[in-house]
Amino acid sequence: MNNKFNLAFVQKLTVEEKAALVTGREFWFTAENKDKNIPSISMSDGPSGLSRQSDMSGNSAKAVGYPSSCLTASSFDTKMLFNLGKHLGSAARSQDVNLLLGPGINIKRSPLGGRNFEFFSEDPYLTGELGVAYVNGVQYEGTGVSVKHFAANNRENQRFTASVNVDERTLREIYLPAFEKIVKNANPACIMCSYNPINGKLNSQNYHLLTEILRDEWGYKGVVMSDWGAVADKIASLNAGLDLEMPGKGQYSIKQVVDAVKDGSLEESKLNSAALQVLELVDQVTSKTFDYDNFSMDNQHQFSEEAAEDSMILLKNEHKTLPVKKSDNIAIIGQLAKTPRYQGGGSSHVNTYKVETPLQIAENSGYKVKYADGYNIKENGDNQDLTDQATNLAKNSDKVIFFAGVPASLEAEGFDKTNISLPDNQNRLIKKLAQSNSNMVVVLQNGSPVEMPWIDDVSSILESYLAGEAVGSATWNILTGKVNPSGKLPETFPIKLSNNPTAGTFDRSKSEENYHEGIFVGYRFYDLAKVDVNYPFGHGLSYTTFKYSNLVVNDDTDHVDVDFDIINTGDVVGKEVSQVYVQNKVSLAELPLKELKGFRKVELQPNQTKHVSLKLDRRSFAWYDTKIPGWHVDNGTYTILIGSSSRDIRLKENVQVDLGSNLYKKVTPNTYIKEVVERPDLQPALEKVGIKDAMHKIRADHQIFPIRGANMFGVDPNKVDEFIRLVNHK
Amino acid sequence: MNNKFNLAFVQKLTVEEKAALVTGREFWFTAENKDKNIPSISMSDGPSGLSRQSDMSGNSAKAVGYPSSCLTASSFDTKMLFNLGKHLGSAARSQDVNLLLGPGINIKRSPLGGRNFEFFSEDPYLTGELGVAYVNGVQYEGTGVSVKHFAANNRENQRFTASVNVDERTLREIYLPAFEKIVKNANPACIMCSYNPINGKLNSQNYHLLTEILRDEWGYKGVVMSDWGAVADKIASLNAGLDLEMPGKGQYSIKQVVDAVKDGSLEESKLNSAALQVLELVDQVTSKTFDYDNFSMDNQHQFSEEAAEDSMILLKNEHKTLPVKKSDNIAIIGQLAKTPRYQGGGSSHVNTYKVETPLQIAENSGYKVKYADGYNIKENGDNQDLTDQATNLAKNSDKVIFFAGVPASLEAEGFDKTNISLPDNQNRLIKKLAQSNSNMVVVLQNGSPVEMPWIDDVSSILESYLAGEAVGSATWNILTGKVNPSGKLPETFPIKLSNNPTAGTFDRSKSEENYHEGIFVGYRFYDLAKVDVNYPFGHGLSYTTFKYSNLVVNDDTDHVDVDFDIINTGDVVGKEVSQVYVQNKVSLAELPLKELKGFRKVELQPNQTKHVSLKLDRRSFAWYDTKIPGWHVDNGTYTILIGSSSRDIRLKENVQVDLGSNLYKKVTPNTYIKEVVERPDLQPALEKVGIKDAMHKIRADHQIFPIRGANMFGVDPNKVDEFIRLVNHK
Repeated sequence: MNNKFNLAFVQKLTVEEKAALVTGREFWFTAENKDKNIPSISMSDGPSGLSRQSDMSGNSAKAVGYPSSCLTASSFDTKMLFNLGKHLGSAARSQDVNLLLGPGINIKRSPLGGRNFEFFSEDPYLTGELGVAYVNGVQYEGTGVSVKHFAANNRENQRFTASVNVDERTLREIYLPAFEKIVKNANPACIMCSYNPINGKLNSQNYHLLTEILRDEWGYKGVVMSDWGAVADKIASLNAGLDLEMPGKGQYSIKQVVDAVKDGSLEESKLNSAALQVLELVDQVTSKTFDYDNFSMDNQHQFSEEAAEDSMILLKNEHKTLPVKKSDNIAIIGQLAKTPRYQGGGSSHVNTYKVETPLQIAENSGYKVKYADGYNIKENGDNQDLTDQATNLAKNSDKVIFFAGVPASLEAEGFDKTNISLPDNQNRLIKKLAQSNSNMVVVLQNGSPVEMPWIDDVSSILESYLAGEAVGSATWNILTGKVNPSGKLPETFPIKLSNNPTAGTFDRSKSEENYHEGIFVGYRFYDLAKVDVNYPFGHGLSYTTFKYSNLVVNDDTDHVDVDFDIINTGDVVGKEVSQVYVQNKVSLAELPLKELKGFRKVELQPNQTKHVSLKLDRRSFAWYDTKIPGWHVDNGTYTILIGSSSRDIRLKENVQVDLGSNLYKKVTPNTYIKEVVERPDLQPALEKVGIKDAMHKIRADHQIFPIRGANMFGVDPNKVDEFIRLVNHK
Repeated sequence: MNNKFNLAFVQKLTVEEKAALVTGREFWFTAENKDKNIPSISMSDGPSGLSRQSDMSGNSAKAVGYPSSCLTASSFDTKMLFNLGKHLGSAARSQDVNLLLGPGINIKRSPLGGRNFEFFSEDPYLTGELGVAYVNGVQYEGTGVSVKHFAANNRENQRFTASVNVDERTLREIYLPAFEKIVKNANPACIMCSYNPINGKLNSQNYHLLTEILRDEWGYKGVVMSDWGAVADKIASLNAGLDLEMPGKGQYSIKQVVDAVKDGSLEESKLNSAALQVLELVDQVTSKTFDYDNFSMDNQHQFSEEAAEDSMILLKNEHKTLPVKKSDNIAIIGQLAKTPRYQGGGSSHVNTYKVETPLQIAENSGYKVKYADGYNIKENGDNQDLTDQATNLAKNSDKVIFFAGVPASLEAEGFDKTNISLPDNQNRLIKKLAQSNSNMVVVLQNGSPVEMPWIDDVSSILESYLAGEAVGSATWNILTGKVNPSGKLPETFPIKLSNNPTAGTFDRSKSEENYHEGIFVGYRFYDLAKVDVNYPFGHGLSYTTFKYSNLVVNDDTDHVDVDFDIINTGDVVGKEVSQVYVQNKVSLAELPLKELKGFRKVELQPNQTKHVSLKLDRRSFAWYDTKIPGWHVDNGTYTILIGSSSRDIRLKENVQVDLGSNLYKKVTPNTYIKEVVERPDLQPALEKVGIKDAMHKIRADHQIFPIRGANMFGVDPNKVDEFIRLVNHK
């Protein structure tokens, strides 16, 4: 940055000029001011591939389509996310785009959320880590990001007006941490303020959110921009801490600001500060040169394939159906093999550079493949001819690879899902084909979890989510074992929608969305309520096997060290994502059974051992206590769990943590008799006051009363008061 | 009442005398003042049978044990509840008890609640109706009641300190309505304030609860007493609206009051009003004479049997296994037939008059019965000898009646349950015996729902809950068909504990209990989340069948009339509980799919038809809107559902309700484009302003934006403002 813009510069601008700066120029630009030598910057949708448009028509310039975030998150690979960011950053520069509107880092609260495919995970820690890597990658290339949608934007229906009713602790522990981590560790150029209100207050007018939390607590230095149309009252927004309205309403918006400064409803200093933020942004994203000559769409396409390969999740693989062999007679069934679904709709949509279909790649691979449509993706009913062809083919093949998925019309920005089923005709056909062939592989193309009524009937399941334009090669390379799958689920796959804690209440009211489940989102809920799931958070298989050993956990002055070994015990090279969960065994508060606080992806040759070493900081043990208000750590015993998934824990070890406060041990009238009788430190005072015998004689089923009620069991209340005074003043 | 006590009388008492009046005399009495001619009154535990004690030892005088409230609620029979109240009221008088500490009307929020057996239902409407009948019955005899536990006392563990965190709407719609109905319709002598805090504030010090809601809003005129030991700060309690501390702490308590009046922390007028409440109570419950000679324990016992017979629920009955016939060779298996569980522990415990066991009654009935223990109720493991005997007996019998249940040690006041399983040995034995005999009846003795892993293996299930001392006759009369069962479940029986919305979070924190599910308690949750259950709320079979017809629903000026017919289409006399559910199809708010708002139990001879006529008042359609704050009714279309259970809806009809307010139809900047385009009433204004075409041209997937964002789709924002002004000022 050349720092050519500063407060002195801003103060020399007219109010009109400043008003223009805090108002987007049409859809995708900031204001230009040739007199003052202020250039306009350009922005574009496209968290998973650039989508440069001239308006809201949806028509955009060609770009490479990367896997959607639902898939890239499954990589659990921060290095890959950083590289993805770099590729997106240079794709933007190649089209003279300065600001990329992404990543979307909202939490997948309900599997019905219409935009889940654009987000990373149900877990805030994973989302934050991946988000930091992505943002650092994009901004490495000189392109700015706009991290969206701030905050708690987890439903599409009535998203401008339905109040997100959520308690402060849940906001802090689930919906804000990923934003906080990116602000603190990746210095994002912009944060995009979302449409929704929280607890009745529009985010775009929420001073607590945009200023007190974002700037004052977290120290955010960048621009707060609005989502497209999120500003309802421009002056209220500027006063709350929003800098840039997108898109602008031209003279209409500028006049509002000028009038407000005139009538005093907006202080000019506030306008100055917003205008300066925008100018600093302009400076930041126009200062680095770009080497257009070295930019290659084919390189980008190649990386899209690698990203997908690093992310696809092998959910199930019995009797080694996968990888398929050159000697197998393979049936490929399902229209999605021929016309794959590889991206989401809405602002994520990319006008892709070149799409490979799984069928093309398979047919040109030298493997013995035959194809049948099986079903019509545009219809939900059965087609007898297609069914018969598919059944015959399945019967006469060694293995079946069935491409299943959710049609694009059911998953896009702007509306929520009403169920998590695959189309009925696909479900029926899978069941039928599985009766004809016991080596049945289902490849899924979908933006969020689906129910699997055929789960026990098929031998293998590969989750490919929305894999981007290289879907064909990536899928085929995994199926054939050219690439060993290493993705892990960033969200739980429940057995049924009704198992999810939002079932029934999600989208129930047009005017509000109540976050009943609080902090118990995703695996935090399923674990607590002991609900069986199809596939748990963090699950994903490999063509090889891994063994974990030698866990050592040590607390240090300001963190806890976690060390363990992983060995590849199979016979092919593979990558494993080891996951570190923390279990608080000491708190009086309502807490999840365990929470992800670390992960590491390592590649191992057969028989190779690698040592994994992680640090857990104070925050890894903290919960948000609204009484402080702040992050509280209970001192005491924690269990550190090392898992290959959230429900496949391989190693565990207890550790005494002393990074926080001791439990409240003061004796009050509300202290239970049982505690007073059992605590050795209190016995001398009981004795001194002369009520030790009387207290100890109280029956076990009466010890559940507090000591203020001990009079009922023959203890003099005056002596109880004396005891309380004594133990609190010694 | 002779009104000998009034404010003038109170003002002549000394502060010490008044302090004594608001302080219980020891455990079970109010203060006596011979100088001032104030008698003491006596109180006793025993919502299901008197339990007159001299201290907290648990030893009480003999009395008839009635079915616990979990069973009597299953009657859905307000006449029976009124008679139960009368019997309890006279039992109290017969032992010179003036005040009966009951009924317990807390809502069964979680099946793990340790005291659920003492409460009526998961539904507030049913609880309120039954509670009114019961209270009117008790007080008809001149005995006072103390309606408990006010309020939201739904967990036992840490019940003195764990904060019940619940939103105001949920309190008003679920946890308070039964208290409100009893206050308004039965004038209870006392309300008992519970131990727990709500949202961090102890109920015994909660002015909002004890004064603003209870007295100011509901118009309550009686005494507010504390649960035993609920007072932590006597002066804070008096100031909040609590009148009588139980039990008293003698001079310790009196001195506190005297000191507080002296130092001004308690206004004497406040003390006067509490003392007067106590005096009026004394007056009320000592004014009616009692005819000791006509009191008969045997009559009471007989009524206990009838109450149980009116309540037991036939959950399942395939291939007419029940009723058993004189010609059947019947195996009775299970120690609970010989040593039945028929009451709950804690303050509900009764020193019963005479207990009949099911086995005794069966053996003396003239039926061909043989008995085997089957299991040892004191152990959870299998006993091979007992198993073999039972299996042999089952194999050589026509029918098996298996008595299963939860041991008393697992269900009592003072602690919560940790699971809802029967003991493993019982579950295993049922499965085993069902393989040997296909006519297998399970009779359940338990205080709250149990999981039934053998549900599909047995032919019949009779839920007898805790049936009181006449458990033997009542059970046998139902099994043999001497009495046709007519009970309906007042709570849902889930398939698994994990299906309940409190699973995992209930009792999770020692310091708080978060009511995550809000208003979605019981069937309100299971229906909304589409969760399968073993047996739904309101379910219960009969030995005959009923047909419903001729539903007519009409709205009147201040209520809605519901009329329909029921005919007994079988060949034995029987009683049917018809249930009226209301479904709000119009509200913007988060609401249950349906709610019970009426029920009626009718007895029908074979082929007899009876007409049922019910009125639904305004409140039947209302939800609590915290923005008013108050009860809001949406005008619009509702569906009235008539069911034989909550999931066996026999008739339904739509009705236009106009008892409330029209939906908010004002146009604001937040009104969605779709609404503006679709509402015929807005078209002229759109035309006049000149944006009709522009608005209508907006693509369907962009109509999900509010009109304040219409500029993005080419509509002049100044014109949008003009349109809003125009439609709101015409």
